[in-house]
Amino acid sequence: MSDLRHDPIQKRWVIIATERVRRPQDFHAKEEKKKMSFCPFCPGNEHATPPEIMSVKGQNGWKIRVVPNKFPALRIEGDTGRQGVGIFDKMNGIGAHEVVIDSPSHETSLAYLSVDDIVDLLKVWQERIRDLCKDTRFRYILLFKNHGDAAGASLEHPHCQIIATPITPRTVSMELQSCKEYFFVKERCLICDIITQELEQKMRVVRVGERFVVFTPFASRFPFETCIAPRFHQHDFLMTTAEELHLFAVALKDTLLRLSVGLDDPPYNFMLHNAPNVQWHPHRPGYWTTLEHDYHWHLEIIPRVTKMAGFEWGTGFYINPTAPEDAAKYLREIEV
Amino acid sequence: MSDLRHDPIQKRWVIIATERVRRPQDFHAKEEKKKMSFCPFCPGNEHATPPEIMSVKGQNGWKIRVVPNKFPALRIEGDTGRQGVGIFDKMNGIGAHEVVIDSPSHETSLAYLSVDDIVDLLKVWQERIRDLCKDTRFRYILLFKNHGDAAGASLEHPHCQIIATPITPRTVSMELQSCKEYFFVKERCLICDIITQELEQKMRVVRVGERFVVFTPFASRFPFETCIAPRFHQHDFLMTTAEELHLFAVALKDTLLRLSVGLDDPPYNFMLHNAPNVQWHPHRPGYWTTLEHDYHWHLEIIPRVTKMAGFEWGTGFYINPTAPEDAAKYLREIEV
Repeated sequence: MSDLRHDPIQKRWVIIATERVRRPQDFHAKEEKKKMSFCPFCPGNEHATPPEIMSVKGQNGWKIRVVPNKFPALRIEGDTGRQGVGIFDKMNGIGAHEVVIDSPSHETSLAYLSVDDIVDLLKVWQERIRDLCKDTRFRYILLFKNHGDAAGASLEHPHCQIIATPITPRTVSMELQSCKEYFFVKERCLICDIITQELEQKMRVVRVGERFVVFTPFASRFPFETCIAPRFHQHDFLMTTAEELHLFAVALKDTLLRLSVGLDDPPYNFMLHNAPNVQWHPHRPGYWTTLEHDYHWHLEIIPRVTKMAGFEWGTGFYINPTAPEDAAKYLREIEV
Repeated sequence: MSDLRHDPIQKRWVIIATERVRRPQDFHAKEEKKKMSFCPFCPGNEHATPPEIMSVKGQNGWKIRVVPNKFPALRIEGDTGRQGVGIFDKMNGIGAHEVVIDSPSHETSLAYLSVDDIVDLLKVWQERIRDLCKDTRFRYILLFKNHGDAAGASLEHPHCQIIATPITPRTVSMELQSCKEYFFVKERCLICDIITQELEQKMRVVRVGERFVVFTPFASRFPFETCIAPRFHQHDFLMTTAEELHLFAVALKDTLLRLSVGLDDPPYNFMLHNAPNVQWHPHRPGYWTTLEHDYHWHLEIIPRVTKMAGFEWGTGFYINPTAPEDAAKYLREIEV
């Protein structure tokens, strides 16, 4: 089983996933990655994945398929096993690690699926997140996509991943804390206020839809970093209605197409920033909840066109060579 | 001039460095990086860099040379210009951005310089950091190295960089805060206590010298992440004596050689985590200082053998496929 270990200097948890073990020799820098001719996610190769969790039927067999990750970072069985190791803290690597295969097609990336197919995929995201939320050992459920080798995708066939973690990750805690502090003073949602200002200033807006806005954040870390958020307050992605889900699919497809056309199919990551599953309620000891005003869900897309270097690792802040205003203008003017 | 912008959700500063501007078209993923035949850091090409800040004389011309970065992320002229932009905050991109050319040799990486040459280089680091510290607009001075293309090095010729920032970066603030909180309770240094435990447990220790220890941190984010720290308490790298500097050079060369031999010259970043230049003293308003017990300097080395992916970006925590105990054992057993 993997370990979760806590760094007392950076107050950060790390997963030491030795079941995905690679021997030191495997890291030799010059070793070329072998091109795989066999794809375990293609129709006909279903035997090559662990047993299916769920699937959506299409015209010929499945059109979306969810399976456990064959080399999971976290495993579902066991208890948290929280313990101290002298000055350090660790716990068992419990959680869940699933793969959502976007479509049977090895070649068609998400941007090029139909809106209806994307809606079906979003419904699968919701269904899996909803199911994992039932397990209160899991504090957070992250859905993300790695597209392209440089973005960390180890298999080419388009897929997303879902990881449920037994702690609330530091990035998420920070967002929750900022939203809480802001609400405490103003009784307004921080992210609602940011969206209002972006819609007024317009210069960082890529696309305004009836219910969703796409913009490049004011303090973007990366060139063409893009955020898709509901224009109305909603803390939990699971609450979106069928109509909202359709409009979100339209916005997602449009944004991914703009990035694909404008930057020649760049590698990218996207992450669904959603409210945590359960968190400690500060004023009601023993009670776990997520407060409605604590969050405002959004999807963050990071094209991987620049490299992290020593400055970023050493400081946690970022040098972005493209102003988000220029990135938004460029993306806005692309015809899709 | 670049902007420093603050993200109110992640409470993180970002440098929007438009003077290093690349047009959106420049990011096309498939564009191959051109191999440069001309190296501005090689002897004879001194005219190709901005005017020299300092140099150390060798047998034939200079052996170490410091120049301003030709495309600086931050510039020395101007005031901080702190201002609000509606809900956001920004300030001018003031600071300093220097390049330290390690040696005249284009081919010899730091690991293969002599100990004496490394000592001279460390003295140059100290001299430049000491000089930049005089400017109290600069809250933090980071020295780092990007080695290899995958680690973000844009020029092959071995060099380090120094960036002075007008704010204390979030990563540094977090380390300071952890050390302060720990000292407040225990009146001992957190990092001293970690080193004591590492020396007792031995399994993550790569090398123990008389004054410096090299170990793989308990919660390593990356395979073969390595830390070099003084075994005695010292908050500021500028305080090291000539003898300590020599022993640090020995430890640094030995560690870089082990990584180079064991992982076949991997790309890597290293960052000198040093005490900040000036910070707001919580109990003495109007007075800037660094408290002696607030920090314990160390050098962090990250071989870039795995890729950051959506999970890491979305959560700020990391999946490391190699246990630090295994990494330490592997590095310990390499003959250098």
